[in-house]
Amino acid sequence: MTLRFGLLGAGRIGKVHAGAVSSSVGAKLVAVADALPEAAEAIARAHGAEVRAVDAIMNARDIDAVLITTPTDVHADMIEQAARAKKAIFCEKPIDLSIERVRRCLDVVAAEKAPLMIGFNRRFDPNFREVRARIDAGAIGEVEMVSITSRDPAPPPVGYIKRSGGLFRDMTIHDFDMAAFLLGEDPISVFAAASNLVDPAIGEAGDVDSASLILKTRTGKIAQISNSRRATYGYDQRIEAHGSKGMVAAENLRESTVEVANASGYLRDPLLNFFMTRYTQAYANEIAAFVEAVAGGRAMSPSGEDGLKALAMADAALKSLKDGREVEIAY
Amino acid sequence: MTLRFGLLGAGRIGKVHAGAVSSSVGAKLVAVADALPEAAEAIARAHGAEVRAVDAIMNARDIDAVLITTPTDVHADMIEQAARAKKAIFCEKPIDLSIERVRRCLDVVAAEKAPLMIGFNRRFDPNFREVRARIDAGAIGEVEMVSITSRDPAPPPVGYIKRSGGLFRDMTIHDFDMAAFLLGEDPISVFAAASNLVDPAIGEAGDVDSASLILKTRTGKIAQISNSRRATYGYDQRIEAHGSKGMVAAENLRESTVEVANASGYLRDPLLNFFMTRYTQAYANEIAAFVEAVAGGRAMSPSGEDGLKALAMADAALKSLKDGREVEIAY
Amino acid sequence: MTLRFGLLGAGRIGKVHAGAVSSSVGAKLVAVADALPEAAEAIARAHGAEVRAVDAIMNARDIDAVLITTPTDVHADMIEQAARAKKAIFCEKPIDLSIERVRRCLDVVAAEKAPLMIGFNRRFDPNFREVRARIDAGAIGEVEMVSITSRDPAPPPVGYIKRSGGLFRDMTIHDFDMAAFLLGEDPISVFAAASNLVDPAIGEAGDVDSASLILKTRTGKIAQISNSRRATYGYDQRIEAHGSKGMVAAENLRESTVEVANASGYLRDPLLNFFMTRYTQAYANEIAAFVEAVAGGRAMSPSGEDGLKALAMADAALKSLKDGREVEIAY
Amino acid sequence: MTLRFGLLGAGRIGKVHAGAVSSSVGAKLVAVADALPEAAEAIARAHGAEVRAVDAIMNARDIDAVLITTPTDVHADMIEQAARAKKAIFCEKPIDLSIERVRRCLDVVAAEKAPLMIGFNRRFDPNFREVRARIDAGAIGEVEMVSITSRDPAPPPVGYIKRSGGLFRDMTIHDFDMAAFLLGEDPISVFAAASNLVDPAIGEAGDVDSASLILKTRTGKIAQISNSRRATYGYDQRIEAHGSKGMVAAENLRESTVEVANASGYLRDPLLNFFMTRYTQAYANEIAAFVEAVAGGRAMSPSGEDGLKALAMADAALKSLKDGREVEIAY
Repeated sequence: MTLRFGLLGAGRIGKVHAGAVSSSVGAKLVAVADALPEAAEAIARAHGAEVRAVDAIMNARDIDAVLITTPTDVHADMIEQAARAKKAIFCEKPIDLSIERVRRCLDVVAAEKAPLMIGFNRRFDPNFREVRARIDAGAIGEVEMVSITSRDPAPPPVGYIKRSGGLFRDMTIHDFDMAAFLLGEDPISVFAAASNLVDPAIGEAGDVDSASLILKTRTGKIAQISNSRRATYGYDQRIEAHGSKGMVAAENLRESTVEVANASGYLRDPLLNFFMTRYTQAYANEIAAFVEAVAGGRAMSPSGEDGLKALAMADAALKSLKDGREVEIAY
Repeated sequence: MTLRFGLLGAGRIGKVHAGAVSSSVGAKLVAVADALPEAAEAIARAHGAEVRAVDAIMNARDIDAVLITTPTDVHADMIEQAARAKKAIFCEKPIDLSIERVRRCLDVVAAEKAPLMIGFNRRFDPNFREVRARIDAGAIGEVEMVSITSRDPAPPPVGYIKRSGGLFRDMTIHDFDMAAFLLGEDPISVFAAASNLVDPAIGEAGDVDSASLILKTRTGKIAQISNSRRATYGYDQRIEAHGSKGMVAAENLRESTVEVANASGYLRDPLLNFFMTRYTQAYANEIAAFVEAVAGGRAMSPSGEDGLKALAMADAALKSLKDGREVEIAY
Repeated sequence: MTLRFGLLGAGRIGKVHAGAVSSSVGAKLVAVADALPEAAEAIARAHGAEVRAVDAIMNARDIDAVLITTPTDVHADMIEQAARAKKAIFCEKPIDLSIERVRRCLDVVAAEKAPLMIGFNRRFDPNFREVRARIDAGAIGEVEMVSITSRDPAPPPVGYIKRSGGLFRDMTIHDFDMAAFLLGEDPISVFAAASNLVDPAIGEAGDVDSASLILKTRTGKIAQISNSRRATYGYDQRIEAHGSKGMVAAENLRESTVEVANASGYLRDPLLNFFMTRYTQAYANEIAAFVEAVAGGRAMSPSGEDGLKALAMADAALKSLKDGREVEIAY
Repeated sequence: MTLRFGLLGAGRIGKVHAGAVSSSVGAKLVAVADALPEAAEAIARAHGAEVRAVDAIMNARDIDAVLITTPTDVHADMIEQAARAKKAIFCEKPIDLSIERVRRCLDVVAAEKAPLMIGFNRRFDPNFREVRARIDAGAIGEVEMVSITSRDPAPPPVGYIKRSGGLFRDMTIHDFDMAAFLLGEDPISVFAAASNLVDPAIGEAGDVDSASLILKTRTGKIAQISNSRRATYGYDQRIEAHGSKGMVAAENLRESTVEVANASGYLRDPLLNFFMTRYTQAYANEIAAFVEAVAGGRAMSPSGEDGLKALAMADAALKSLKDGREVEIAY
């Protein structure tokens, strides 16, 4: 049986997922919708799919699953529509910037028993996955402290930042999900410190660009996150978990393994610089996991609830930043 | 314009190249031939191609290029037939185990002006390519000494070894080509030392399994090669070039970047263990380079002459091993 | 001119400093005092010095400088006595567990214009020093975020912990000083999260053993510290500074550079496991720097004020832990 | 009991050994001789020793052992004189440039039953020692192939090269000894390839500056050596042993563990650049081992025979270079 997909949103990330669908065994891209017909057309042509309107995709008999890669503000509406139309749903993070809206959306999803996966792609990075697998295999005993370093090569345009919901909801949200993934427990509180150091325009837009956060779980496990909107040496994505019996860490990825040595020293490549290159394999694995879970009738992971949790952490972090204190996370 | 391929030989490596053709822009697999019809059928089906007989492929109007991935003993015949049929030709190494046969074959290729590329896949490994690019960019000045470490994870079956032409023609041949590629000059002499240390059955079959070789060029550049048919820690493939201004090296590839630390120490993954996994990207790049060269009417590299040269080095190495002295390479 | 030393306290660290004095050019150990005469005797004999009483050392005409390596509770008294006796003073951290006592002590030091250096040895670690030097040379532009990982191999005896002033005053105090050293600015606030995960007996003694802290400066620079009283893989001491133009980091030290590879992977040594081995060179450099500063009449660094600041951070961290909020540091 | 030393030769390396004696427990420097009285005087003063004539040291009752660090051409004479005077003898490599002279010298040593250690300092490098220890512990099974990379930062003055006996006797001799040390068996044959690439003046002086060598043992084990008189990135000293069960390697040493990252990449320090800095610990361990062996009446290692063997390998390598063939080593 082949899972037939409709793609809602033909932007940059839509294109990546379309490619992942086409190269997944047991999956096929049937239709593409986008406000820009040329964008939809380009992806459709590349994958032997049709251009259709959103409603046509939602109601199509020849479509089993939708990929929601539109701008964030219509995610929740589309999830609800797709859930009512009995589609399996893959939606990019976040579900919505408003946690109340997310809750209502997930109520619909639950009522319709719709399978919903949220695009926290980093869980599918082969190295990060392996870190989780080593923890599960007992390699470090009980996890005690998690460290996440997550820095973008350069800040997005200020226009984007203004609509993004802010650093915590836009960028740190991935790290919140990763922290929960590695801790193996939901954080119950968060403290956030943050500054505007990279670009004054970001501060003028009311946001921060450099942050350090601490999460704690009920059993006392601790995660720390280091964020920056700029890293001259590339897309810095490292994780480390320290436990009762040892430590496990995953390193960054580089363009090559080449090293040049001379009187200045030994020079290795900077890091892969672009999230799509850095997480190519993660994006492919993510769609493959979605296809398998739908095919096997298995529970989705990361689920809509995981999406809700990460947003709740972001909201609590924002409150912490304002109040200068540790804030309990309201799931 | 799309380059239309016929695949001659539907074995393990044929399957890899078929995949590379299908995912190359401007290339298409049209037909597959193999002595085992099921093998040809499986690849044809997977890529929307047909099964045809060898002669049918050679003479087909709808086929522009052939991929020769049959057993070695028919390579030269097929190259000649394809050359006369005006096909562009990609052939796996070696052209033949007999250098006389190779010479005659290349004469036909020259007479027919047929484009011929030999499958020295390692030249297309992104890391090794980058080493060459850094040398070309002047990063280490004049190349003086090249070191190649090339060890297989485990020996092939003795049955294979008996027909292989021996370690130098079967395995070291890749390293001979890499040495020439990195030195930027043809070696003029070779010395080989070798032993049977890995498996007595290899020695009984008249071959060696552990070797160290030295090549020299006319200007005094030196390359050393270290070979073993066994490496418990994976497929060990390293290169290093030392020059007047510095050094450049490419490291091995691993399953993941994960490291686990405990009282025993810090443990990283063993190396990728299988040549197809290790050189996945190299195989893809190789076919893409062939397609581009044919499309652009550019000279082939590595060429048939490169195939001849590597074999000449192997033959000289065998003579060196027998005579216990440095042997001049007869190109 | 030779700087003549009296050593007050013939314990483990006293022995290290005695050795550093003896091998410093321009320094000489003249006398040793300790409540245990045998301990004093052993060190004195090894370095050609005499055993004397504390008062005798304080008042000696043939002694220019004292090294205070007694238990913490007499540090402040001894500093004051030595200051009044016009000695140059090197004192192990902390000056006292009570910040009020430290202030009074530093008032005496100031009144007497006594040169006072505090033993934050890590500033003298060659690697950490080099990190600071690279920052000073502009290698990373403006420092924005500092990360310090500081984990002991194993917790000290609970008896020690009870008298230690707690994790922040005993262990993190080094990291507070390092944070200030790397930030190049005094932190103005601190947040601390901490747990008792390593040994329940530590919790019963009223202390924590696992902590994550965040410090902020007036200009918005951020430092994060990760502490644990246990690391199975050795004494984990890493620093990283991220700035507007790049990043600089110093790695851990190992027993050897040896790596063993087999089917399990590539295994490097665990970390140096003992603070005296890990910081051997730092201890030697520290005493050499003290000798040079006294000889050259230069200001002491780290100074008594640096000792006060680190303690103020520790006190604020304790308050933060109790109150669950960011606490302003009262210097 | 304290081993009382006389130092013969107050040059650069004599100074290093004098320091090692002074800081060895159970050893003491009593007297120093040198053709330059000021040189002898400087070392004597620094270590509380006297200046004496060579004969006076040889015949002194208050001296148990001599350190021979004179120019090579008097090594053998001094060893014989010291052996007859019943001194324990430490002599820098090589014993002599003429293997016949070495043989006669060792005959005298044997007849006098004099303890003689040759200064192959690299065996005492902590990392290289650890490699040997891991092999002994079975970490890699049977050793099969050894790789030694040994490159000097820059060539010595041509004047030195002219008197040095050539690259193989002067520089490679250390690697010959290391090869035997790691193989655990005496090589029986050698092949050498070499060029003059670094500096034409070296070639004009009749020597080579870049070389690659292969050694073989009776059981078929193979060692390869890569030498250059120049490495822009520092003093390159690496070893690797590949065996039936795995591989063990020791890496180079650097000034610091610091790494700086920016848009150019990740830059680590060049290598330690000077043999005395690189092998500081080796020189100290070497003298300590000599003192312990004399004190314990144990056999010397590396022995005079080890010195002879390394020279025999060098002589055979020279012959190989001239004849272009593998040469049997005549021990």
